[in-house]
Amino acid sequence: MTSEYRIRRRVHFYETDAAGIVHFSWYPRYMEEAENALWREAGLSIGHPESGVGWPRVAVSFEYFRPLRFEDEFEIRIAIVSIGEKRIEYRARLVRGDTQIASGRMTVSCVRRNPDGTMKSAPIPPEVRERFEVADTGDWGGR
Amino acid sequence: MTSEYRIRRRVHFYETDAAGIVHFSWYPRYMEEAENALWREAGLSIGHPESGVGWPRVAVSFEYFRPLRFEDEFEIRIAIVSIGEKRIEYRARLVRGDTQIASGRMTVSCVRRNPDGTMKSAPIPPEVRERFEVADTGDWGGR
Amino acid sequence: MTSEYRIRRRVHFYETDAAGIVHFSWYPRYMEEAENALWREAGLSIGHPESGVGWPRVAVSFEYFRPLRFEDEFEIRIAIVSIGEKRIEYRARLVRGDTQIASGRMTVSCVRRNPDGTMKSAPIPPEVRERFEVADTGDWGGR
Amino acid sequence: MTSEYRIRRRVHFYETDAAGIVHFSWYPRYMEEAENALWREAGLSIGHPESGVGWPRVAVSFEYFRPLRFEDEFEIRIAIVSIGEKRIEYRARLVRGDTQIASGRMTVSCVRRNPDGTMKSAPIPPEVRERFEVADTGDWGGR
Repeated sequence: MTSEYRIRRRVHFYETDAAGIVHFSWYPRYMEEAENALWREAGLSIGHPESGVGWPRVAVSFEYFRPLRFEDEFEIRIAIVSIGEKRIEYRARLVRGDTQIASGRMTVSCVRRNPDGTMKSAPIPPEVRERFEVADTGDWGGR
Repeated sequence: MTSEYRIRRRVHFYETDAAGIVHFSWYPRYMEEAENALWREAGLSIGHPESGVGWPRVAVSFEYFRPLRFEDEFEIRIAIVSIGEKRIEYRARLVRGDTQIASGRMTVSCVRRNPDGTMKSAPIPPEVRERFEVADTGDWGGR
Repeated sequence: MTSEYRIRRRVHFYETDAAGIVHFSWYPRYMEEAENALWREAGLSIGHPESGVGWPRVAVSFEYFRPLRFEDEFEIRIAIVSIGEKRIEYRARLVRGDTQIASGRMTVSCVRRNPDGTMKSAPIPPEVRERFEVADTGDWGGR
Repeated sequence: MTSEYRIRRRVHFYETDAAGIVHFSWYPRYMEEAENALWREAGLSIGHPESGVGWPRVAVSFEYFRPLRFEDEFEIRIAIVSIGEKRIEYRARLVRGDTQIASGRMTVSCVRRNPDGTMKSAPIPPEVRERFEVADTGDWGGR
């Protein structure tokens, strides 16, 4: 059972903006990278189109504490904070050494794809559900 | 005094992902496009490096209701919902025709750049503050 | 018969990098925006998945003469320079006022999608071919 | 003396497009990632603003042979093919296992930043030049 995961990452030049720091739109992408790595750690891939199931994002939020700059090395820690019938909610924390950079939350929803391309909310398949559990994030503090 | 603004936008191909829809990381960028257009409407540019002032994002959140696809035309409506001594908070709503696509919130903070490149929180300059006022978003509903 | 097209565009903040200019990877995207607008001008959409035909890029090149900065307005002019049995080649030129910013070339290939998701080179469908012709770019000069 | 470098990379979901493959605009970014890693391998950083020197891209070209998909692992091999007084030219090759994915070329130019923010072509500083040499790419073949 997998409940959390950490990846290390270096800032690429194309992720910076004219203010000299990573553009804020990259943080949800960093969080998704960590989520996809968490799924691989659990022996799953979130993106197999042939599975007939997809995982669109229904909510995301980030708070930004300190900037990241080109070539900074940082860590993204992601944890599952709830698993519902049809939804999974994650928290993430970005740190550079001892410096807290940002924290985020993201909720994804399980959908089945209809033959016409539309998507319909669906229960999380058992083969996914049995691999994950809620993490203990008691030490993450308030933010 | 400017308090809200609308822009129309078409989905570019590079904004879509392998699920066939716009990747969720684009919505904060769409919101920033609308914010920058709001500033231009007010006779300002948010990005003049020589002003010595910057506007880093300190919080962003989005809820996603319906997907956007390649070449979809949609509208982004942005409104100022609070102006503090050092911060501005916006709400945004994305619609495609009568369909609600997403809603977002974003808080930006005024900073002064020190000679060594670091940034320090600073009061919003009068020449910015006098151009903006809080919008009436009473008709936006709960979400 | 459509052979060339122009779009106007403003630089978004997220397109800039820590050098204060548009990151070079955006120029192929700008060119693709102009290409997709050229197709719409011809009454076509390059991206309908149900058409069974796709247009992957097989070659792209850019030369960069002058930088673009945040909020710069510029124009992208795209022209068809050859139409083969299975390929279309374009040229593009980016200008800001009278200043030449960049020039590019891009070749796209027509493919059919097999049921297993692989792609196979295919002749350009007549309904596409009959809408396009080669442009006169005699005034574009050597670069 | 450093002349070439290899990095391994996995495709992120946000790099794919609605055709189910990596959007072509990512390949120049992959090449830049390899370039920046080559510089770090040589004990340098290409992006220190305080150096007063910058390395804008003056030309880039790519040929695309096979697509990359979500979570594909691939390798980027970059090599220096010429070092002029003011310019460095690289070649890159992307492979997934034994499959050739793409090949690219990129030329970067050394510039000094003037106090007013403009850039002026400048000789490559000795502390950079002495770390690099031209690679032997005799085994790379014609493409």
